[in-house]
Amino acid sequence: MKIFDTEGFPNPARVRIALAEKGATDKVDFIAVDVMGGEHRTDAFKAMNPDATVPCLELADGTHISQCNAITEYIDGHFEGPSLTGTTPKQRAQISMMNLRAENGLLNAVGTYFHHATPGLGPDLETDQCAVWGNRQKETATQTMTYLDEVLADNDYLAGAEFSVADITAFAGLAFADFAKVEIPESLSHLTAWRAKVASRPSIAG
Amino acid sequence: MKIFDTEGFPNPARVRIALAEKGATDKVDFIAVDVMGGEHRTDAFKAMNPDATVPCLELADGTHISQCNAITEYIDGHFEGPSLTGTTPKQRAQISMMNLRAENGLLNAVGTYFHHATPGLGPDLETDQCAVWGNRQKETATQTMTYLDEVLADNDYLAGAEFSVADITAFAGLAFADFAKVEIPESLSHLTAWRAKVASRPSIAG
Repeated sequence: MKIFDTEGFPNPARVRIALAEKGATDKVDFIAVDVMGGEHRTDAFKAMNPDATVPCLELADGTHISQCNAITEYIDGHFEGPSLTGTTPKQRAQISMMNLRAENGLLNAVGTYFHHATPGLGPDLETDQCAVWGNRQKETATQTMTYLDEVLADNDYLAGAEFSVADITAFAGLAFADFAKVEIPESLSHLTAWRAKVASRPSIAG
Repeated sequence: MKIFDTEGFPNPARVRIALAEKGATDKVDFIAVDVMGGEHRTDAFKAMNPDATVPCLELADGTHISQCNAITEYIDGHFEGPSLTGTTPKQRAQISMMNLRAENGLLNAVGTYFHHATPGLGPDLETDQCAVWGNRQKETATQTMTYLDEVLADNDYLAGAEFSVADITAFAGLAFADFAKVEIPESLSHLTAWRAKVASRPSIAG
């Protein structure tokens, strides 16, 4: 199994944390993709992944899986260890819902702000910016942080009592927010405490 | 089990098709939400679903599930019948990937065009438009139609040999495209043939 990614980028981080949670990091070969050099937009890469994004998973039979949620779904189902996506229909639905709220409202909102309303990855890559939309997404990200703080006032983790992919997505979203200089309001004490707790997990702290 | 939704809207249609595929339509009470009157933005509705969107599923124990993919995940896991989300890790990942491509690239892209670059649901509801972004998403929708046509040149359904939630999402996306007047290029013969085939399923044709 291979993963084509760029270490340190937000979506690759989600997959790497999921692998570490399953104790499976050493079962995967990581192939570095030169996103800064535009490798993800080459015809060769797009033949593997028409989304032109990292990460992209390659199975032993040559099948390619992109879209972070699809990759973490595969990792969770394929490897042993505690479930990250839930085991009952209700739990799976709750985790999926919270994961999508964290993804759309935080991680992707920060990403849209970063790529559209800041210099982003630089003029060679950011050729299609839309600043007005990007700045709105920054507001969405801040609103989502407030919402997640409210959820964490009553729950140990975003989808309830157990750590899940929703926590991984939100954690990567906050890291991206730091990088893109989207401030996390100091008043969000539940979010801050949850973040410290997640950061101390062996899958992240190492 | 209850579903709060608005009949005829794109995301409610996805859930209703999924229920019909599972033979479970009569096991759910549908509660009409007056989206045109802004009911989805009231505090009472947002207490159930902070996303302020339809559909929203209410389980017998009072749990609320929003986000269409989370709802269809629940429906597929809870009811008997052919799987719509896959049964092996590889199949689940492939369906998830294709479903997300159809959702982000087609259904949501059409939705963003409709709500941001056309009169959408009218001036009382469309208070936050961004036409430049909306028009770009129309281009994305057309590009995604072309991509889906290429996939369907080699596959009976979007995620391979079996009908899945990816097909439901793309089908609802094309219906939304018709409504929003986003043209489906006539040259996309595989997409058009697949659409006619899906439209003839009992879950849709009735």
